This record gives sequence, structure tokens and C-alpha cells, in this order.
Amino acid sequence: MSTHVTVGVDVGGTSAKIGIVSAANQVLARGDVATGSIEPEPLAQAIADEARRLAAEGSMTIDAVGVGCAGLVDVEEGVVRVSPNLPSWRDAPFRRLLRETTGSAVELLNDANAFAYAEGRHGPGRGTRVGVYVTLGTGVGGAILLDGDLFVGARGMAGEIGHMSVDAGGPRCLCGGRGCLETYVGIAPIAALAERKIRSGAPGAAIRRAAGGADAVITPKAIAEAAAAGDWTALAVYADVGEVLGTAMASVANLLDPDIIVIGGGVAQAGDVLFEPARGAYDRQAIAPADIRAALVPASFGADAGLIGAATFARDRG
Amino acid sequence: MSTHVTVGVDVGGTSAKIGIVSAANQVLARGDVATGSIEPEPLAQAIADEARRLAAEGSMTIDAVGVGCAGLVDVEEGVVRVSPNLPSWRDAPFRRLLRETTGSAVELLNDANAFAYAEGRHGPGRGTRVGVYVTLGTGVGGAILLDGDLFVGARGMAGEIGHMSVDAGGPRCLCGGRGCLETYVGIAPIAALAERKIRSGAPGAAIRRAAGGADAVITPKAIAEAAAAGDWTALAVYADVGEVLGTAMASVANLLDPDIIVIGGGVAQAGDVLFEPARGAYDRQAIAPADIRAALVPASFGADAGLIGAATFARDRG
Repeated sequence: MSTHVTVGVDVGGTSAKIGIVSAANQVLARGDVATGSIEPEPLAQAIADEARRLAAEGSMTIDAVGVGCAGLVDVEEGVVRVSPNLPSWRDAPFRRLLRETTGSAVELLNDANAFAYAEGRHGPGRGTRVGVYVTLGTGVGGAILLDGDLFVGARGMAGEIGHMSVDAGGPRCLCGGRGCLETYVGIAPIAALAERKIRSGAPGAAIRRAAGGADAVITPKAIAEAAAAGDWTALAVYADVGEVLGTAMASVANLLDPDIIVIGGGVAQAGDVLFEPARGAYDRQAIAPADIRAALVPASFGADAGLIGAATFARDRG
Repeated sequence: MSTHVTVGVDVGGTSAKIGIVSAANQVLARGDVATGSIEPEPLAQAIADEARRLAAEGSMTIDAVGVGCAGLVDVEEGVVRVSPNLPSWRDAPFRRLLRETTGSAVELLNDANAFAYAEGRHGPGRGTRVGVYVTLGTGVGGAILLDGDLFVGARGMAGEIGHMSVDAGGPRCLCGGRGCLETYVGIAPIAALAERKIRSGAPGAAIRRAAGGADAVITPKAIAEAAAAGDWTALAVYADVGEVLGTAMASVANLLDPDIIVIGGGVAQAGDVLFEPARGAYDRQAIAPADIRAALVPASFGADAGLIGAATFARDRG
């Protein structure tokens, strides 16, 4: 008798990660297919082929497929409206295409929602009444779970924490707004902040070394490495970023009174150098008494959260 | 046969407004009793006496009493934990006291929640799935209704819109936070902004005239009068205030994707001079497409919202 499994897919800008996810939320096997400028039909075919190959290797039966994708995803229609990772796609009926290529039940959701499902159903948010989930990467994604179910708002667009303004007079965002959280806490603004500090005279040697040399591109990862090793410039970068992040999370907490705020995504891998200043600002700004205030906790599934959450969603809706 | 009515009470810092509210949400009769430094027992007695007098005049039968009160109110326990309007009260069992003095069913809730009930059940928020309600007064109160029911968060503290930060480096708030919305949009900060503009050289004659003379205290009401008459200094004050308000409302909208945002309270009586700049900032910052974006609308019940909402809540829970 073969094991029944769910396939989780996390569609990114350069590749789609595919995982065979067990009923206990273990990733049993992994693969990936290139995305880039691929069209919906060939991507659906490539995902189906890879999922079948992975399942066959372990003599597993695929019950359902869940796909997380950045951008505006219409869950009910199974359509990717627009996606920053797939710029040529417009209203792509990707759920139907994947149903045809895989022969399985398929569900499609936004990547931040997939992250929230993983962390909220199986991670630190498990059992909470009001959970807030934030992913820090190129942009800042967010989602809210109420009693474990996604809160999508009146028209399916809730959770855009990255576009909450932390300064009405702040820098212009791609969305047209000003001072959006993601103009401070995304990959590019964190790197730019380090560059600015170094240009204005802060010592940059440790960050440059961590980045791979004087000519290497500075990344949040390199800054985090330098910060963890005690470099003051790098620590100052994360102090500023954490201050903004913590203040924004307190605004969310003051509005929603959540049980928990879970923060993940690549930028959150910085760990304590980010979380400590974030908690400092959060504690100052949050009005709930300290003993009942929602904790600000790191995500638990790392890079697998998208896969696992998409698989969970597909299993739930199946 | 006598008409069955509900009593709505809105407890303020100087007086408690008492209204006899019909099943059709008309205020049939009004009275008030002084509050000031009154203790819970005599206030419960005075409210009961006044309600009985009003009901007797119209040969009406009181079915229930609803009381809205600023501060931290425990709805389930019927207790006023702390209230800025009643500084000597601590954990006052005001629901029980009023039950004893009135002999009726009594419910107690926060004043912003009472406002939300009125506007959300009988006003512009009627029938919406996700409604956001904001009162602008001494402070900024807020509440969220989901399908017409209060969303209180994990521990009953949700809705503190006034303590969302609009500038992580902004002015210190009484709550300990920085740049809280109510440090910009409350009665005192609006008056202070006008004073600052005049001190730095903006013409202040129109505002001073509206306030009642050169030595009179400047109020948001006087500034609004001058703005409505076209005074540039006054218009500039409301442009700044509206900018902050609209940006904050867009942050809320980006997070919650509401159907509607209803704005009331004394400061909102300024009308277009406030709402126009607020909508400008809101439209810039909100990411939902313009055709489906939640409207920013003025409240409909004016100073009666607290009464009517408290009565509605009592009727609902009765």
C-alpha cells in the first residue's frame, strides 16, 4: 500500500520549489523546476512531471496539490491575477491547468497566506485565536488567521502589512504610498541603508568582508553575519530596521489584539540582531500590558513554510 | 399599553447623557446627570432616577439599559477597569450597580464600541462584512465589526486605532509609544498645530476671531469654522491633520480590506475640510483598486451615536 501525500509548490521568480509533504507535515522529497519567463501551461506541465517523478521514487500516491504564489491570487477562482514573480501572467487559470496536468485536486493561494497556514496550523501559531503572520523578503507579506482560518477581508485583499505606512512623510513606495513598511524592511532597502551608513563614514569593512569583498553586493545576509560578529555598523542597520518593524507590529497589535505575531522569510533569518531591537520598539509601542501582550516570535519552518502551508491548504479544502 | 424602550447612556467626563431609545433607534427623550468626580454608586442611582423620570413622562416601559464608557471596559464581567473620564474608578462593577438601581437588564461597553454599534448596525456600516469605526475626540477611539459583531481580538483589547504609529520617530504619546495617531488627530494636538503655525508667521486672525477673540482658546471647532470660510492657515491645519488621518486609515484598509471606514466624533464635525485631505492621502496609500476600495465616510448619528449604540448592544444581548 502506498503512502498518501500532498504536493506543496512554492512558485518563485527563478524556480518553483516542489515538495512531497506527509500527513505529519514532513517534507519527504524535494525537487524544483525553472520559472523565469515561463508561461502558465508549460509550468503546469513541468510541475506535474516533477511531482510525479518524486512520488514514483517513493511509491507515494498524490492526493492533492497546493500551490503558493506571490501576488494577487483569487483563491475562489483559482486564478493568478498578477504576480511580481511571473510578470507576463495576467488572470492565469493556473488551478485548472494544474488539475489537467496532475489529475489531482489543486488549490492555489497567495504565498504569504501559505506561510501563515504552515506557521499558524503547525507552528507557533497553532491553537491561537488571532494570529498575525509576516514574511520579510524582497517585499513584506502578511496574513491574519482567526481561529486558524484565513481572514481575507471584504474582498479577499486583507493582510497587506507591507503597505502599512510607518511614516506618512516617508519614502515613496512602488504601490504609490509613502513610508510603507516594505520601503524599510525589504532586501533592497536594508542593503541601501548599510550603503548609506558606510558612505556617511561608518566603518564598512566587516560588512564588505561578509559580502565577499570590496566589490561584492551588500546583502541583508552579509549585514546580519557582520552584526552577529559584533560589527557596529551592521548592528546599527538592524537596530534601525528592527525599530521600524517593531513599531509597525505594535500598530498591528494595538489594532487587532492578536495572541501571537510570527515573523519569517529570508530577512528574518538575521535572528536576534533583528528581533531584539524589534522587540524593544514593540514593547514601547504596544499598549496591552506586558504580561498579556502578543509575543513576537520567529517562524519555525524556514524556507519550507511556503510548501508546507500550500500543502496544508490543499488538504484542508480537499 | 406602554411603549417598550431601551435606555442608552453615554458616560462622559462632565456628564452622562441619557436617552430613551425606541426600537427604531429614535431618541425619544433626553436627560443628563453630572459626573465629574462622582463615585459608581451615586452615579448608578442618579442614572436610574433620571431614566425612570424620562420613561414615566412618556408612559414608557424600560426593557434594558446600555451604557457606553470611555476606557477599558470588561464587557463579560460588566466592569469599568479604568476610565479617563472617571479617574477615581478602578474595577467598578457598574453593571451590577445599575441592575440594582434600575431593576433592568444592563450591558456595559466601551464608548468606541458603542459608536461602532450605532454606525455599523443602523448607519452607513449596515450590512457590511468588515467595518472599521473611528471616533475623533480628545483621543482617537476605534472598533472593528465583522458581519455586524464586535471583533475584540484575543483578549478583548482590539480596536486601538488611536495608538497605531504613523511615525516611528514621532512625538511621544501618553501611552509610551511614539507617533500614535492620536498625537496628531486629537483635540489638543490640532489646536497646538494651529498655534505653532500662527507662531511661525501664518495669519491667525480668522482662527482667533472664530475662537472668540485674541485671548480665547483655539479649538478644532474654531479652526474648522475658519477653514470652512476659506482661511488658509486653518485649511493648512486640516490639510496636515487629514494627511495623517488618511494615511493611517489606508494602513488599516491595507491590513483588513474593509467594506467601509466610518469616521465620527467631535473632530470629524469639521467635515469636508478634514475629509477632503484625508481622502487624498487615503487614495494615495490604499492599495485596493479605486473601484473596490472601502469608502471613508462620515458618521451619521452625530452626538447620539454613543447612546444609540449602547442601547442597541443592550437590546442585542438581552
